[in-house]
Amino acid sequence: MMKFDSLALRIETDSKTFLRMFLLDQTLLPAQEKWFEVITIDQMIEAIQSLRVRGAPLIGVSASVYLAREALSTESKNELLDKAQKLYEARPTAVNLMNCLDQMKIVIRENGSAADIVQKALQLFNEDVELCEKMAEHGAALIQDGDSILTHCNTGGLATAGIGTALGVIRKAHEQGKKIHVYVDETRPLLQGGRLTAWELKKLNIPCTLITDNMAAQLMSLKKINKAFVGSDRIARNGDFANKIGTYSVAVNCHYHQIPFYVVAPMTTVDPQCPEGSQIPIEQRKPQEVLGASGHFGSIQWAPEGVAVYNPSFDVTPAQLTTGWILDTGVYTIKDIQQGVFA
Amino acid sequence: MMKFDSLALRIETDSKTFLRMFLLDQTLLPAQEKWFEVITIDQMIEAIQSLRVRGAPLIGVSASVYLAREALSTESKNELLDKAQKLYEARPTAVNLMNCLDQMKIVIRENGSAADIVQKALQLFNEDVELCEKMAEHGAALIQDGDSILTHCNTGGLATAGIGTALGVIRKAHEQGKKIHVYVDETRPLLQGGRLTAWELKKLNIPCTLITDNMAAQLMSLKKINKAFVGSDRIARNGDFANKIGTYSVAVNCHYHQIPFYVVAPMTTVDPQCPEGSQIPIEQRKPQEVLGASGHFGSIQWAPEGVAVYNPSFDVTPAQLTTGWILDTGVYTIKDIQQGVFA
Repeated sequence: MMKFDSLALRIETDSKTFLRMFLLDQTLLPAQEKWFEVITIDQMIEAIQSLRVRGAPLIGVSASVYLAREALSTESKNELLDKAQKLYEARPTAVNLMNCLDQMKIVIRENGSAADIVQKALQLFNEDVELCEKMAEHGAALIQDGDSILTHCNTGGLATAGIGTALGVIRKAHEQGKKIHVYVDETRPLLQGGRLTAWELKKLNIPCTLITDNMAAQLMSLKKINKAFVGSDRIARNGDFANKIGTYSVAVNCHYHQIPFYVVAPMTTVDPQCPEGSQIPIEQRKPQEVLGASGHFGSIQWAPEGVAVYNPSFDVTPAQLTTGWILDTGVYTIKDIQQGVFA
Repeated sequence: MMKFDSLALRIETDSKTFLRMFLLDQTLLPAQEKWFEVITIDQMIEAIQSLRVRGAPLIGVSASVYLAREALSTESKNELLDKAQKLYEARPTAVNLMNCLDQMKIVIRENGSAADIVQKALQLFNEDVELCEKMAEHGAALIQDGDSILTHCNTGGLATAGIGTALGVIRKAHEQGKKIHVYVDETRPLLQGGRLTAWELKKLNIPCTLITDNMAAQLMSLKKINKAFVGSDRIARNGDFANKIGTYSVAVNCHYHQIPFYVVAPMTTVDPQCPEGSQIPIEQRKPQEVLGASGHFGSIQWAPEGVAVYNPSFDVTPAQLTTGWILDTGVYTIKDIQQGVFA
């Protein structure tokens, strides 16, 4: 039996007749490390929508592995394709999810055997691990000894099958022996920075300080931050990109303080069909997330009952505020993009 | 018996032998409206430090009223002056507190009777009400029908003895019949926007939408915000000013999006002894506030145990990012300040 272990996704399989998948319930971190087995498609969709599994690359790999699990118990091609569609609709902004499922669908449509389908999912897992390594190598080369780095949301081992995107870059620099300090935006409303990135960095013994999102600008004005690295859920052909709400504010503040601002993502995050950021669909999430907070402690509300709320999951950062695009294939500038590397 | 009633401070007094003061416990809002009587100086200091009473003007008036209460039970001038000093040290950034206590100290040093001291405190209360009215009149003239306004923290009736500073301006424009919409930054870590401003605006029936602090920039990029009004705890001679952490980020974002950004405060907030913002002392608050949240639900923590935290209560916004200074004495521009209006 083969085992595939990442920080938040575990697979046990013999590739042919047997596949079990387990996810770390990220809504319970950092208080509890609780794994659960994904058995039904409703569980998988709920896990995506409730952010028990999160991070665009990990969602793509997890949904593909889930589809492979289904392939072992059905021979109906249409049923599998329907399920692929349902999984896609669970998070339509995530282009990685779409790309992973598209690759799975090719194998399904070509009448691949269950073993072929499982093989494809495991390949996507392994590819993600390799992509993370490549991004980390490219990005870490931009980090100097003594750098003080801002990051937003969680883009590490909890967001990918590998070491991460933006956080993978930071981890690699640390492993290369560079002395760095990381400022972690808590990332309201879902607190992925405060709950998850802080937990990962502590596990890795990387020096870090947790801040509320509105403190980053002050730290920049005091020259305590000299680089910023963020992830992305979708990059348009012109370099504009969608990422967790709050990323755009980081970009504007970096621009004002002349601090290099990098986005880190696999090339699969680029959507050449999407001409510019304004075309990226932005989900609105539940008001309850802004009215209070949720976690292992349950759900609390601090805002008055019935107050109106705005709660976009993402914002779009325009290409002109971005210093560099760190992809598995290399580091690109706005000039490279204008010359068509994303087309 | 006279009664002085504001949204968060109530006084009952006969001016000569009797004074009771009650504060609304703002840490329990919006879930509970619970008043408590302030009897000892330790209670008064704890109320300031725990933010049961908050807002620079209201802290100044409350501390003065408390000192008057003490004057009715002691004849020792030195004891009163010692207590004034202790009250000042409870929140050294708040210049209003210092100014109010300085006025109280003059009456004490001049051997004023207890009745004189009580009279002075009540005068400070009434003056604050009038100052709010004047700021509101000046500021509301800058608001047009259809404006969509961002505000940060709480600067309303919960922060002053009157209708407020920045929120007083917004309230006045609404009362003048202008159709406005208010976007309320929740204002992490202490959530004064989400808990208090949302509560006040709902009470006043002013249309509003609650957002997390990191969403304001996106709303600006979508042209959903066309003015911003914030308060201040201390204004330096050159126009730089300290206000709740997160204000500076709002200012940078307004600057980038060419949105007028106004600070609203009484002239007593100006500290002519302070040449520029870098000279304003910034308190660091407890890590627990950033590791989680507190309120009527108790204290919860979502971040991992032992992670380092940065938690300044204020940041400093430089004069060059500020469109106008709305004071009780008028609206000033950077040119007015360069010509010495704050000196």
